Amino acid sequence: MAQRKLRGGMVGGGTGAFIGPVHRMAATLDAEAEFVAGAFSRDPVKSKKSGEELGLDSSRVYASYQEMAEKEAKLPADKRIDFVSIVVPNNGHFAVAKNFLESGFNVICDKPMTTTLADAKTLQKLAAKSGKVFVLTHNYTGYPMVKQARHMVKSGMLGKINKVVCEYPQGWMSGLITNPGSSLSMWRMDPKISGGSGCMGDLGTHGENLIRYITGLEIDEVCADLTTFVKGNGLEDDGNLLLHFKGGARGILYASQISAGEENPLSIRVYGTKMGLEWKQEDPNYLIVKDPAGTQTRWSKGNTNLCKEALAAGRLIWGHPDGYIEAFANIYREAYRAIRAELAGKKIPVCDYPTTEDGVIGVAFINALLASSKSKSKWTKMKV
Amino acid sequence: MAQRKLRGGMVGGGTGAFIGPVHRMAATLDAEAEFVAGAFSRDPVKSKKSGEELGLDSSRVYASYQEMAEKEAKLPADKRIDFVSIVVPNNGHFAVAKNFLESGFNVICDKPMTTTLADAKTLQKLAAKSGKVFVLTHNYTGYPMVKQARHMVKSGMLGKINKVVCEYPQGWMSGLITNPGSSLSMWRMDPKISGGSGCMGDLGTHGENLIRYITGLEIDEVCADLTTFVKGNGLEDDGNLLLHFKGGARGILYASQISAGEENPLSIRVYGTKMGLEWKQEDPNYLIVKDPAGTQTRWSKGNTNLCKEALAAGRLIWGHPDGYIEAFANIYREAYRAIRAELAGKKIPVCDYPTTEDGVIGVAFINALLASSKSKSKWTKMKV
Amino acid sequence: MAQRKLRGGMVGGGTGAFIGPVHRMAATLDAEAEFVAGAFSRDPVKSKKSGEELGLDSSRVYASYQEMAEKEAKLPADKRIDFVSIVVPNNGHFAVAKNFLESGFNVICDKPMTTTLADAKTLQKLAAKSGKVFVLTHNYTGYPMVKQARHMVKSGMLGKINKVVCEYPQGWMSGLITNPGSSLSMWRMDPKISGGSGCMGDLGTHGENLIRYITGLEIDEVCADLTTFVKGNGLEDDGNLLLHFKGGARGILYASQISAGEENPLSIRVYGTKMGLEWKQEDPNYLIVKDPAGTQTRWSKGNTNLCKEALAAGRLIWGHPDGYIEAFANIYREAYRAIRAELAGKKIPVCDYPTTEDGVIGVAFINALLASSKSKSKWTKMKV
Amino acid sequence: MAQRKLRGGMVGGGTGAFIGPVHRMAATLDAEAEFVAGAFSRDPVKSKKSGEELGLDSSRVYASYQEMAEKEAKLPADKRIDFVSIVVPNNGHFAVAKNFLESGFNVICDKPMTTTLADAKTLQKLAAKSGKVFVLTHNYTGYPMVKQARHMVKSGMLGKINKVVCEYPQGWMSGLITNPGSSLSMWRMDPKISGGSGCMGDLGTHGENLIRYITGLEIDEVCADLTTFVKGNGLEDDGNLLLHFKGGARGILYASQISAGEENPLSIRVYGTKMGLEWKQEDPNYLIVKDPAGTQTRWSKGNTNLCKEALAAGRLIWGHPDGYIEAFANIYREAYRAIRAELAGKKIPVCDYPTTEDGVIGVAFINALLASSKSKSKWTKMKV
Repeated sequence: MAQRKLRGGMVGGGTGAFIGPVHRMAATLDAEAEFVAGAFSRDPVKSKKSGEELGLDSSRVYASYQEMAEKEAKLPADKRIDFVSIVVPNNGHFAVAKNFLESGFNVICDKPMTTTLADAKTLQKLAAKSGKVFVLTHNYTGYPMVKQARHMVKSGMLGKINKVVCEYPQGWMSGLITNPGSSLSMWRMDPKISGGSGCMGDLGTHGENLIRYITGLEIDEVCADLTTFVKGNGLEDDGNLLLHFKGGARGILYASQISAGEENPLSIRVYGTKMGLEWKQEDPNYLIVKDPAGTQTRWSKGNTNLCKEALAAGRLIWGHPDGYIEAFANIYREAYRAIRAELAGKKIPVCDYPTTEDGVIGVAFINALLASSKSKSKWTKMKV
Repeated sequence: MAQRKLRGGMVGGGTGAFIGPVHRMAATLDAEAEFVAGAFSRDPVKSKKSGEELGLDSSRVYASYQEMAEKEAKLPADKRIDFVSIVVPNNGHFAVAKNFLESGFNVICDKPMTTTLADAKTLQKLAAKSGKVFVLTHNYTGYPMVKQARHMVKSGMLGKINKVVCEYPQGWMSGLITNPGSSLSMWRMDPKISGGSGCMGDLGTHGENLIRYITGLEIDEVCADLTTFVKGNGLEDDGNLLLHFKGGARGILYASQISAGEENPLSIRVYGTKMGLEWKQEDPNYLIVKDPAGTQTRWSKGNTNLCKEALAAGRLIWGHPDGYIEAFANIYREAYRAIRAELAGKKIPVCDYPTTEDGVIGVAFINALLASSKSKSKWTKMKV
Repeated sequence: MAQRKLRGGMVGGGTGAFIGPVHRMAATLDAEAEFVAGAFSRDPVKSKKSGEELGLDSSRVYASYQEMAEKEAKLPADKRIDFVSIVVPNNGHFAVAKNFLESGFNVICDKPMTTTLADAKTLQKLAAKSGKVFVLTHNYTGYPMVKQARHMVKSGMLGKINKVVCEYPQGWMSGLITNPGSSLSMWRMDPKISGGSGCMGDLGTHGENLIRYITGLEIDEVCADLTTFVKGNGLEDDGNLLLHFKGGARGILYASQISAGEENPLSIRVYGTKMGLEWKQEDPNYLIVKDPAGTQTRWSKGNTNLCKEALAAGRLIWGHPDGYIEAFANIYREAYRAIRAELAGKKIPVCDYPTTEDGVIGVAFINALLASSKSKSKWTKMKV
Repeated sequence: MAQRKLRGGMVGGGTGAFIGPVHRMAATLDAEAEFVAGAFSRDPVKSKKSGEELGLDSSRVYASYQEMAEKEAKLPADKRIDFVSIVVPNNGHFAVAKNFLESGFNVICDKPMTTTLADAKTLQKLAAKSGKVFVLTHNYTGYPMVKQARHMVKSGMLGKINKVVCEYPQGWMSGLITNPGSSLSMWRMDPKISGGSGCMGDLGTHGENLIRYITGLEIDEVCADLTTFVKGNGLEDDGNLLLHFKGGARGILYASQISAGEENPLSIRVYGTKMGLEWKQEDPNYLIVKDPAGTQTRWSKGNTNLCKEALAAGRLIWGHPDGYIEAFANIYREAYRAIRAELAGKKIPVCDYPTTEDGVIGVAFINALLASSKSKSKWTKMKV
């Protein structure tokens, strides 16, 4: 029998935002859910307008997230939202997520989870205690071939992992370096909004999460070199890290917003004793396996030679490219599996989405690299 | 103010179909429409089951398309479907589309439009007379960089076009050549269902449409070499064409289902007197412009240096890959523009989707290549 | 013990020529030979000047090839040339090669062998009768990964071959289409010098030879569409062929000089019942094997997983690119094996270089496609 | 008038060596020189055998480099070698080069120049005082598109350089990590022969030199993380560096021999305020320029739109791949320009080859990264 559509609410993501529409497309791609409520902006007028444009019932468009949590909680079970998607800037994640968890809602939250480690741990505990679902949208782990990479590492195909190189350069700020007149009203670069890190919080944490998702390796210590090239940026716009993983593997992770002409080429290379592999976000439907015997083999999405997680995560067969939205939708699809269980009063199954644990580790990672940077690149332990 | 969601119906596309789910994801990606009715199979039981799985009101799940057209037409205007998506096998397109057009519905129809030229022309006239919207889902024209290619040709950047090479090899039937025991219940290869052509009808027509969309060139005559490699296939599974375009340009167009190891690499290369360009469906977010001065320049989706059609057709900014579904959704988005105008009683604006004209030309193209093939590759004029 | 350096002579290839220096670098790369004599131009003054620039003893720089053949033949065995490299325009190949064969010399000749089939057969017989070595420099077969491709086909790894696509577009004449003022003193486009075909003789024959080398398939009949786009060109500058191979395989072969922005991307794709493969001259150190199971595997030069011919043909280990000259030098290296045997009075071993048979077939191929083109693309049998 | 062929001698590079044959092919590719003398091995018997195989006059094959320097110096000017190529392992460079410089010979020496900074400076002074030519074969700077990259940076096309990423992973030792039984008689990993660094001395110095050649940036300080993964290796087989350049630019440079499945993909990416660029050694005939406006443009070897140095360094026109040997030969070609001037008693012109200055800086770079590594990745100044 058909499952009913889940009812979602959104905090943030009003007109003009980048990530709000992404969440909406991803959340509804499979027709498993629809958004019925929202507090789309701190400005009640803007929130109303966004809700209207989205065709929501005006009674479900709220002036603030607090009002939304309070009023939705009072609605009957067959009317109120089943989950909330939080897409406000970083410094708002904690308060909004806390409020909704405490009001009894499942939460899907943009990354990074919080701006301080204490907040992250508070949320982690709160989520655990509440019995609600908490999903962190490190969306890049939603790509089918990322799942295949993880499978290959787990299966031992690569041997013991010794080296990881993860890159995430962007170039959109490069022109601002020599153009100081530009108005930099970018929240990403405002420490009050974004937290203590700029490109590392925005991009580097995706890299950290991707490394951990694929390899299972835990960072032991980091050595960080952060630089602010754009005058007026309150945070670093380029960061280069050396990594020591527990067990002896070594790594490089870098992120940048001043790498002129780069778009969004997040990539990862993993080298084991037997094989290497490489995945590139801008060419996401392929995974390259490198064999010292002299071949490089491209595996591709949608084929039956993939592991079941990778095959299931492909929405279309071979040769029909899945994109960023489909990968993002895979996070939501797994979230829905968990949410439906929660709503049914069942034990939440083990699902394939980033959790509060990922959130805590992500914030600890930022803390470690900031501490290393302040101590002139001293090796600094990850403290979770 | 928000637009109301359009109400769609679907004929065909029940459980297990490939293209039905694609249409559903594409049609609803922008939350501009939802499917509320359907006749998903010739088998009423299967149709019911599919409707149930999709969560439709059972009163709107029909035992046949005839019943659906009849009953939907009788519903009040604020309840009945605004359009129907037809995703049955090729030989059903004509009857279903005719019925719905005559019953007063806007039609979105899978390609090829019909299996005979007479039917295609009948539909073309009927659609024109009805004042309804008729959209043919040659989805590959929905990709942003295909629109950019078209813009570049139109703008004269390539000079006069002299040569076009369009390839569409697939390999999924290759193993069947030497494995005659396989059950070939594939409707694509059954002339009764698929029409007179196999891989040319399935794949080649996409190529023909793509060439015309990008270059505006009209085929004057074709020279065709069709081969059936897989025993039991009632139609060709490999086809190679030479093309003469009006005005003197030359071309090659080939399609295949026995090109072992190929997935879905539809591609097109266009050469003018000044520049060349290349686009590949498996790497769809890029367009290569080849300059005889010694450079090849990759333009990419989501950048502001693109023409406005290409920019608008990108759902996400640079570096965030759009895929097949997003391209397909662009066809629907344009269709909705037209449908909303039609519903409002306004003149249907010029929109960017394939029309009955594309459908007629596509069928004429198949006719010409079949005639050429029968005459041992004699040059054969396209007759529309 | 060290082998002595072979002594070479050259006819054609004086100052300013393209292919002369290529032959000289290729012939001497392994320090197995040196050029000691030459008739570098029809113009005795130019010939002298070229010889001087090359540092040759002036007594060995001749005013004509006839003089060279005659005088070299009279030199003592330990002084006279061991072979002659013929790099004059196409229409000169026959007379020069004939003269040197008849004068008792081993011959290395640029392609196409001759401009008429009768001449080709005459040379073939003459070479056979003479007992001398005759090598035709279809240099693209010298690439290591071409040899690997041939090995894979021979070994049955691809299954039965059903489809071949070979492309050879260049773009350097594209600008001339709309620039009729250009002086077209290009011998390649002068039928008196070049023979009956333009881009097919220049480029297409490389494609034909490459197909045959890799697959062993023999062309049964061709269907040709040749076009001259550049005003003033006496021969076609664009040619598209459909191919029927003996045994039922199908093919496409095209060559062009007006494909704006293309450099020299000769490529071949071969599809069997089990696998497909692809090789590209502009990326020559790799070979892609396409497996319907869902992978594409890149094999690369210089690895020990290659067949022994491919491994031996790589001059450097993995990751150190070999180029055009090294591939060309592989033809010479095999030629020297044969020449040393001939000089020693031994039976000439089976070597891996193109022979008079390749030359005859290449000319027959041109004849067939020209006949087809004249009969409006009628299927025309290859007649050897 | 023709230039006479220069006479070369070689120290090291006997039968079975990798780099000896490369030098021989590169040195003679343009027929500007020939090797006439050598001391090919410390073992006089092996040296003789190698000389014989190379076809040298046995009187010019020496039992030691000392004997060679001494005896060649006594030969008349029209007989003795014009230069010596030194291709012994690292720890031999200094003594051999010193001897030949002092004996009055021009020197072409493999990299790194020496194993200690003191030796490097001694050689630098000695070379300067001697008035002889000293060329260090950092061969990767010989590629045409590396020269084009340098030109673009110099011309200001990229704006001010802010970030450099240089990678040089190889994978050939990866299997040895878990295969401790392997006999590791590899001189590269023996500190007595190779100097204080393993993969950084072998590969990393190529990266350092390439960065400096292209960008002109000078390293101010390094932060190094070196690891030995293969048991038995006396030196690091993986090294990751953070770089601070004078003037504020930042960088990453890494080299590895345990990156399973990598062949020889040395690459460099340079980001300025205006543009970025990328070059890859395994695809050497192309250079990618990345424009924040939304394009990535591939420039290619052999086109007239290149700077004159890049155009001259291409041995063949567009589309005809040059490889490793051709790039190496470009170093020799420039060396010959200098050597001919020296032999003629003229002032040595400014030529485009790596010099003793590059050698000194390369050794200082190794010193700095070793010191950093010993101090747990403390930022360490380059001291020249």
